[in-house]
Amino acid sequence: MTVIRLYDKPECPFCWKVRLACSELGLAVEIIDHQAPARQAEWRGVSPNGTVPVLRDDRVAISESNVILEYLQDLTGGLLPGAPAERARARLLNHYSDTRIGQALRQVIFEKRGKDPAHWDQGRIAAGVAAFHQALPFLADQLDGGDYFAGRYSLPECALTARFGLAEGYGVAIPEAFPTLQAWFQRMKERPSYRPTRPLTLPAVRP
Amino acid sequence: MTVIRLYDKPECPFCWKVRLACSELGLAVEIIDHQAPARQAEWRGVSPNGTVPVLRDDRVAISESNVILEYLQDLTGGLLPGAPAERARARLLNHYSDTRIGQALRQVIFEKRGKDPAHWDQGRIAAGVAAFHQALPFLADQLDGGDYFAGRYSLPECALTARFGLAEGYGVAIPEAFPTLQAWFQRMKERPSYRPTRPLTLPAVRP
Repeated sequence: MTVIRLYDKPECPFCWKVRLACSELGLAVEIIDHQAPARQAEWRGVSPNGTVPVLRDDRVAISESNVILEYLQDLTGGLLPGAPAERARARLLNHYSDTRIGQALRQVIFEKRGKDPAHWDQGRIAAGVAAFHQALPFLADQLDGGDYFAGRYSLPECALTARFGLAEGYGVAIPEAFPTLQAWFQRMKERPSYRPTRPLTLPAVRP
Repeated sequence: MTVIRLYDKPECPFCWKVRLACSELGLAVEIIDHQAPARQAEWRGVSPNGTVPVLRDDRVAISESNVILEYLQDLTGGLLPGAPAERARARLLNHYSDTRIGQALRQVIFEKRGKDPAHWDQGRIAAGVAAFHQALPFLADQLDGGDYFAGRYSLPECALTARFGLAEGYGVAIPEAFPTLQAWFQRMKERPSYRPTRPLTLPAVRP
């Protein structure tokens, strides 16, 4: 197979979900920090809008994380279940992670990242945590005590592992009221894909 | 095949692209105006976020237009080309239509819709038209004089036909500087899928 390059930003949840997908699929991927001075011109050449992630191989350059994931699915068949209705459920959960879960956690992470805790806006953080908690019953309902969200490891595993991993790094845990989600996340962290794709800047648990 | 219901809003570009896809695929679909008083409770039951379009069959309810299109592709194989790189290009163009083209035209349509022309903010309209024009060279480049954007009728045909159709209805034409895009749109309007899916509220060309 051709060399795959991923232009990446370690703490970007869309990048992390692509890194997880590549790792789970066993693909050899050159991960390139888009801010590395020696690679910026190369990244700008494949990223017309200046975004990450961008996946590049000898056939195509793809600058949207969900288009990248569908491309990796088309190449390997390894990121979606087989039945159309289950595939739709997997894609809807991926969308839910990108939007509802992402919007909640962004409030917390943008407030805490790179700031002295003395200057954190605790109201904004509490609002983000509350929105995160409110988004979890739907996920617990969808997981329904199963091993995976859509019958096998698929898009929502990539998406939500990255989101929950970032949440944990910024001090937002899955509450005890959601034991099946806690157990699911613990299983995801124990997979070989987790540690090597985790942002190095992220502490195990940040206060 | 099971009965497919589409909860719909006629002038919504995301709904129109799904209607085009269903028509092109020859699917029997019951189109339900989500605002019809007799169907609102039914629509709310399948649309947790109160959005359209929603596709419902006996297996699944899907509330995101791109997840609906991927589902129809999974059922029929009729909305994407075969090669992974071409499929990625089709999905990227669909995304470009949803975002770059959509954001430009929204400024025009939201300003004109349901308003007396005497009260139109001409500056906002001009800004939207300018953004639309600026977004077209990329599309002309991608079409590259071909019959379709990705080798065959696929997602960008559904997405861009709906956007260009709405633009035309609100008085925004494709400029003569883009003859291949003009000819492409003319061909799309001549397909059997265009007239039956077109919003009835839309004049042929609105001033």
